[in-house]
Amino acid sequence: LKEIGKMDKLEFILRQLAKTNKKNYENYVVTRIWHKLDNINVKFITQQYVSRRERKYALTDMYFPQINLHIEVDEPHHKMNIDADKVREADIVNITNHEIRRVDINKGLEDIHSQIDDIVKQINSRIQYLGDKFIPWDFEKELNPETYINKGYIALEDNVAFRRCYEVCNCFGLNYQGWQRGEAIHPIEKDTTIWMPKLFPNGDWDNSISYNEDVIFETAAPTNEKYYNKQIIIESYKRKKRIVFAKVRGPLGDIMYRFKGLFELDEKETVKTNCAVWRKISDTVKTYRV
Amino acid sequence: LKEIGKMDKLEFILRQLAKTNKKNYENYVVTRIWHKLDNINVKFITQQYVSRRERKYALTDMYFPQINLHIEVDEPHHKMNIDADKVREADIVNITNHEIRRVDINKGLEDIHSQIDDIVKQINSRIQYLGDKFIPWDFEKELNPETYINKGYIALEDNVAFRRCYEVCNCFGLNYQGWQRGEAIHPIEKDTTIWMPKLFPNGDWDNSISYNEDVIFETAAPTNEKYYNKQIIIESYKRKKRIVFAKVRGPLGDIMYRFKGLFELDEKETVKTNCAVWRKISDTVKTYRV
Repeated sequence: LKEIGKMDKLEFILRQLAKTNKKNYENYVVTRIWHKLDNINVKFITQQYVSRRERKYALTDMYFPQINLHIEVDEPHHKMNIDADKVREADIVNITNHEIRRVDINKGLEDIHSQIDDIVKQINSRIQYLGDKFIPWDFEKELNPETYINKGYIALEDNVAFRRCYEVCNCFGLNYQGWQRGEAIHPIEKDTTIWMPKLFPNGDWDNSISYNEDVIFETAAPTNEKYYNKQIIIESYKRKKRIVFAKVRGPLGDIMYRFKGLFELDEKETVKTNCAVWRKISDTVKTYRV
Repeated sequence: LKEIGKMDKLEFILRQLAKTNKKNYENYVVTRIWHKLDNINVKFITQQYVSRRERKYALTDMYFPQINLHIEVDEPHHKMNIDADKVREADIVNITNHEIRRVDINKGLEDIHSQIDDIVKQINSRIQYLGDKFIPWDFEKELNPETYINKGYIALEDNVAFRRCYEVCNCFGLNYQGWQRGEAIHPIEKDTTIWMPKLFPNGDWDNSISYNEDVIFETAAPTNEKYYNKQIIIESYKRKKRIVFAKVRGPLGDIMYRFKGLFELDEKETVKTNCAVWRKISDTVKTYRV
């Protein structure tokens, strides 16, 4: 298999399916849905981390991000919750408003087939229902800042993620070839920072995001030698808005910067909790051409 | 997964597909053909040993025994020949008159899909062409002697194999509950032995079968303390016909007795080679009710 940077749609699909290796029922159900659906415009992710409740997570077996649908193959070992420390870096999907369909594998071959026929029918009718709002899966386009510059905005519902910090920056009127830092000053909206944090405890930082992903707590770890919370708070007053792309591990273990929304400093809470508290004020941010 | 004796069609299929674990392209092609075909009356075997030329073998990725069709996923590592000593016990299929279709995986997703659509079309039209001669895959029936007793005969083209020696015997007018020996005297055709040999060198025996499976050489190993070739030849003169079910390892590693035809002692060759030489005289044998 090619390295992630040189991947195409086929490689991406094969790697998704490879995650069902040695899980015979899962492999059967996932491949059957995909092949019977027979629509290369539909994107799917296998073994998607989802948040179940505060600090408890689960994996769904097949996730269709364009239509907010998850498939779970009903095998007993899938039902457990995963603790927060196991998902630290994961690209977690908030499933509020998502639908989860279960496939019961206990009633034999023909029953499984008929359940899957039903799921495929549902996927097709949802795509039809969405009409123009259904954006066909374009493997090149979805990773290219140009797509979102042309569109004029980035929205949460479009499930946007980039592979490089500079690609994030270049959506907002910058023209970087590389960028190593976790933040950049927005060149047009002067009160705004483009922020690419790890939203989990990691060495110098103890950042976190709330269950429903509308509040971010920016905190220095007690061992952080360069920063402490008072400094962070002072910094945060300079530009009180942040476009947030969280640094996560994507479906193939690769690093991605996932759009989480536009956040604003909650001054009251910041004073109260003694760490910078960022509250989501929009699911959409404007993009800019250089 | 259930043990082999308690398996059903779903389990059998899952185990066939499990053989494509970690072979991403193979898994993709095989599952796609199966799911797009969408016909549970069609049997398939993955990684089927086939004879390529004298004492050289290969694996095909997907084999449809009812229609003599093999699929090969064109990946370089598949192309090699396998030596005779590696396939000793394998259930080898003679592919004379079989068709092999290759799937080229180098031209991308849509090209693979269109190749597979074409294969599925071919399978469907072959089934249609066969009409009544196409025997739907019945997992219970194909392992049950009763099926072949009702039919009145066993033919090579029906790919018949049983899991137990006594099931072989019971096709010919016997009524055993168990049978441990590798041969039984035919109760009706008195010149005939029902023979279930290993047709490869194995401890006491150095048996072999010719490439096109029409001659069997029955030979005692030099180390065989109970028999030597002269004795074998004397024995073979007592009943000069043999219904042969070769003991092999099936697609799931399980032992099977695979029908190979009706053979007759070739007296001339036996004298010449100093081992019992059996020559196939029919692809079909009559079955009998008790």
